[in-house]
Amino acid sequence: MTIMEKGTYHYTIGQSDIDFTGHAKHVSLIDYILQAAGDDASQKGFGIGDLNTGNISWVLMRIATEFVRRPSNGERITVNTWVNGVTRFGTTRNMEMLDAGGRVIAYAVTQWAVIDLETREAINLTERLDFGFALIDEPSPIPIPRKVAAVAPRDEVSRRIAYSDIDFNNHVNASCYLTWMFDMLPMECFSGMRLVRYDVNFVSEARYGDTVTTGCADDGNGGYTFSIARADGSPFCRGAMVWEQGAEDAAK
Amino acid sequence: MTIMEKGTYHYTIGQSDIDFTGHAKHVSLIDYILQAAGDDASQKGFGIGDLNTGNISWVLMRIATEFVRRPSNGERITVNTWVNGVTRFGTTRNMEMLDAGGRVIAYAVTQWAVIDLETREAINLTERLDFGFALIDEPSPIPIPRKVAAVAPRDEVSRRIAYSDIDFNNHVNASCYLTWMFDMLPMECFSGMRLVRYDVNFVSEARYGDTVTTGCADDGNGGYTFSIARADGSPFCRGAMVWEQGAEDAAK
Repeated sequence: MTIMEKGTYHYTIGQSDIDFTGHAKHVSLIDYILQAAGDDASQKGFGIGDLNTGNISWVLMRIATEFVRRPSNGERITVNTWVNGVTRFGTTRNMEMLDAGGRVIAYAVTQWAVIDLETREAINLTERLDFGFALIDEPSPIPIPRKVAAVAPRDEVSRRIAYSDIDFNNHVNASCYLTWMFDMLPMECFSGMRLVRYDVNFVSEARYGDTVTTGCADDGNGGYTFSIARADGSPFCRGAMVWEQGAEDAAK
Repeated sequence: MTIMEKGTYHYTIGQSDIDFTGHAKHVSLIDYILQAAGDDASQKGFGIGDLNTGNISWVLMRIATEFVRRPSNGERITVNTWVNGVTRFGTTRNMEMLDAGGRVIAYAVTQWAVIDLETREAINLTERLDFGFALIDEPSPIPIPRKVAAVAPRDEVSRRIAYSDIDFNNHVNASCYLTWMFDMLPMECFSGMRLVRYDVNFVSEARYGDTVTTGCADDGNGGYTFSIARADGSPFCRGAMVWEQGAEDAAK
């Protein structure tokens, strides 16, 4: 195995990232985590720009995130990222997000497949591409994304997929699903609790014009499960969160 | 009048800015324009962080934007910004967005008020604050934002204001209103047309839990008007767009 360096990328929390509490939204932090994945893949020669020439593209299959705190407007953040697993079905890419003082903001583990942009089917990674050179022999910082079971939702919101939801892969962007889940939560989560762990499974693609229903159920003890599905119940995306009591902004 | 320099700020188009055509969404470009306003105000000592200590904050009242082209993923952009007008009711701040080759991507003129965060009323700028030192004697690059008349909408979409829509001012963020307007357009606008001019008036504040209805009417000739309103028809926001036939990406 070649000795490969972790990728290190710097971003600045902008005012559009900030929620009513003055801290960056979890989805904004995940957007920077996914941006670092894209930046690192591009820098190493297998970004979406490289893959699109072969009419294939990266799609996110699962993500797990653990948050220590949410930074404030104008804070500089650093994301270190490394790939530590490749199979025929996909890659495992890890991230740690640090603040200007080197303290941890969040960790993430992501699992990616490559799809053919015409057939929308996953391709066999080990046949078509060689990512072995990019592997770094360092374990994931948190447990890999868990399989989220089907949800029996109590609250539901439906929406029709519109222009702004659709990304460069011509399907609903991951951030949209995440946003719809966070929008099901009580506001008290954001002002008095900390999101300890968040697992998301992307099951199938929602496309322009589809109608999707976001459902949420909670266990009364900080555990929330989510389903984003078609009218017939077949899932686009599932998520699970664990929240704890207590303010999260001790670190700054 | 003090000789003041225009503020110059640099950003990079990220993958979350990109739509299905591979170009940055108009709303993402406007987000960078508004970020530059915030960055410049902060650098000169009257940003939201400075004002919030007095329990007052900037709110956007009107914006006009003219677009030349929409940049691609990874492009570096520069926003130059300057304030050229202050009255008791607000300030006029201008922006020009340039690409790495110094070519114009977009121009904007914005009008801002300062509100008391308790009463939500506009304060008299000339009584409470002194922005005279920040004025730059250079005209706006495009006509100032126009008053948008009431709309008789043909298509309507309603939604309930959720967590993600609410910003640091504890009301619906400007970008949300803009996103809802763009999501009313036919997809052909984004693949085969250019947005020549976009005027938006922010009339009143939508808050968490409000139900808002976005309406759209078109003149069949590239002109679209929008209303975002309460159930009783009283407006939160109005917008008008002029679109022209033709691809927009000639410059790169």
